[in-house]
Amino acid sequence: MQELSAQLTQSVPPERLALTMGDPSGIGPEIVARTLLNAEWARRCVLVGDPRVMRRAFEALGAGARLRVAASIDDLAHAPGTVNLLAASRLEALPPVGVVHAASGRAAFEAIAAAIALAQAGRVAGIVTAPIHKEALAAAGLRYPGHTEILAERTGCKVAMMLANDELRTVLVTVHCALREAIERADFAAQMSAIRLAHQGARAFGIAAPRIAVAGLNPHAGEGGLFGDEEQRSIAPAIAAARREGIDASGPWPGDTVFMQARQGRFDVVVAQYHDQGLIPVKYLGLDRGVNITLGLPFVRTSPDHGTAFDIAGRGSADAASLGAALDMAARLAAANRTTRKARP
Amino acid sequence: MQELSAQLTQSVPPERLALTMGDPSGIGPEIVARTLLNAEWARRCVLVGDPRVMRRAFEALGAGARLRVAASIDDLAHAPGTVNLLAASRLEALPPVGVVHAASGRAAFEAIAAAIALAQAGRVAGIVTAPIHKEALAAAGLRYPGHTEILAERTGCKVAMMLANDELRTVLVTVHCALREAIERADFAAQMSAIRLAHQGARAFGIAAPRIAVAGLNPHAGEGGLFGDEEQRSIAPAIAAARREGIDASGPWPGDTVFMQARQGRFDVVVAQYHDQGLIPVKYLGLDRGVNITLGLPFVRTSPDHGTAFDIAGRGSADAASLGAALDMAARLAAANRTTRKARP
Repeated sequence: MQELSAQLTQSVPPERLALTMGDPSGIGPEIVARTLLNAEWARRCVLVGDPRVMRRAFEALGAGARLRVAASIDDLAHAPGTVNLLAASRLEALPPVGVVHAASGRAAFEAIAAAIALAQAGRVAGIVTAPIHKEALAAAGLRYPGHTEILAERTGCKVAMMLANDELRTVLVTVHCALREAIERADFAAQMSAIRLAHQGARAFGIAAPRIAVAGLNPHAGEGGLFGDEEQRSIAPAIAAARREGIDASGPWPGDTVFMQARQGRFDVVVAQYHDQGLIPVKYLGLDRGVNITLGLPFVRTSPDHGTAFDIAGRGSADAASLGAALDMAARLAAANRTTRKARP
Repeated sequence: MQELSAQLTQSVPPERLALTMGDPSGIGPEIVARTLLNAEWARRCVLVGDPRVMRRAFEALGAGARLRVAASIDDLAHAPGTVNLLAASRLEALPPVGVVHAASGRAAFEAIAAAIALAQAGRVAGIVTAPIHKEALAAAGLRYPGHTEILAERTGCKVAMMLANDELRTVLVTVHCALREAIERADFAAQMSAIRLAHQGARAFGIAAPRIAVAGLNPHAGEGGLFGDEEQRSIAPAIAAARREGIDASGPWPGDTVFMQARQGRFDVVVAQYHDQGLIPVKYLGLDRGVNITLGLPFVRTSPDHGTAFDIAGRGSADAASLGAALDMAARLAAANRTTRKARP
């Protein structure tokens, strides 16, 4: 065992990542398969998903990587052209492509749960997730709005979602809920949590003293109380409290201009109050390089910032660039974490 | 009188525009003055504002245009280098620069009211407004959130705000109110009004059959009811009703990607549900070419899409490009209207 362990340590880099297949009915399996044709990602990643689903995806690509179902995380074979898959589910029939399907929702969930368990056990430095579909989860009886909520529940951590591309980073105070509910949830405690996580998250990017801009909730950040008082009741007090903790937070800034200013270099991260406020600017210039990062976890987690794209699933035309960017980002963050956390072989 | 009238008809183009000075304490007067150094704009515009305030602004520019206070709209002198000003107020003291000031709010309002009266009388084809400050209006006892509401009240028209730059046009269902209130206001009637105005507005741009995308209110456009029901209750029914009227409306589309898709050419106009949803993407790439257009009025009205910028007012460093773009747009729309409306000499 000692010898085997030493061998594995040599061949497996400490920044090993778990990569989940996503919803079997969406573009997840095909972009995962295409990405794992890259030898470096095939070597560094453990694919977590369903053997039947992933075999279909690799076969659709024609010649390429050899899919090898590993018995466990201790049974990985790192030969060129080999992709190691840990089976999180064993579907008896291939689910249909391009539609909400309960079996797909269930299999997608099982892959995420298995990847989280690997990360919690310290057997991977981080997890990268392909897109899932909330209605498919719901069809399987799983009431999660998205990955973030699964991660928060399984780890018991206070998490926040950071969206990043080459020119903008934003952290969301609230994510997957009705806008009406987002206004209620964006209280002082939620502001503090997001500001602190934005600060830590930006430091993980190597920024020593990140400049955190906090967006207002209302138009013109409330225009001095004329358009709502959430800025005065929750946001401004949280900014003041964060500053007392030594965080360079400022605002509340008008939402309509703060992202433009961050893009121009004035801020390192923008704390956005709700989903669309933060995601509209991140996605505006195109989806191909956007990455979603979950902050607050004891391990790295990233994902592409697009969905399952049922309308084009199964055609082989889906763009894998955002997934590639998510893997790049996860590898970078895992490397930065290496000094503080020892990966077990 | 007959002769004078004939002379004026020759020298004044039918697309004469009223240009308001904006808040005297902000950057309005200086960007207006700089813009009117352009001989073509000086010839086509009637400046409406305060003589003392505008004199300060022109003097700060050094040599340049000669400011001439006209007795009335029938007393314009179109000599090269001459800017005609109609006095809407007569401030006895110059208001301070860079702060909220009641006298500034009052004078800014008087200029707007006078410009609206000119347009309603058919003496100008449209009005272009420099930025005002809502808190200054409030300090003067005027409870208007912005120009749009003043225009709606004075004309009795159902109006909507369109924001446009070189690559995106968006029409807002709700504008200046707390986000909480915007959710209440974005009902079926408000959707219908915005969709119809978006359609008419895009046609005024010369698009025969505009493709109108309607954004959802909630994340992922409600994700099939999981994140709020406004899409099902108000937005989708309004889209269906608009289609029955022959309007090419579609949606509700997820807010986080619909603007990116419009920018890529998939739609001609996006109907946004609330202020930040529509303004974040319009402003994201910079403010210099953004224009605000009020739809639904019997005359043209445009403005730059930035504010009074108190922090840099009076320094002469403010960028007049967006005001120039607003004048360009107003002239274009007025020319398009010429066939349906006769300008009176």
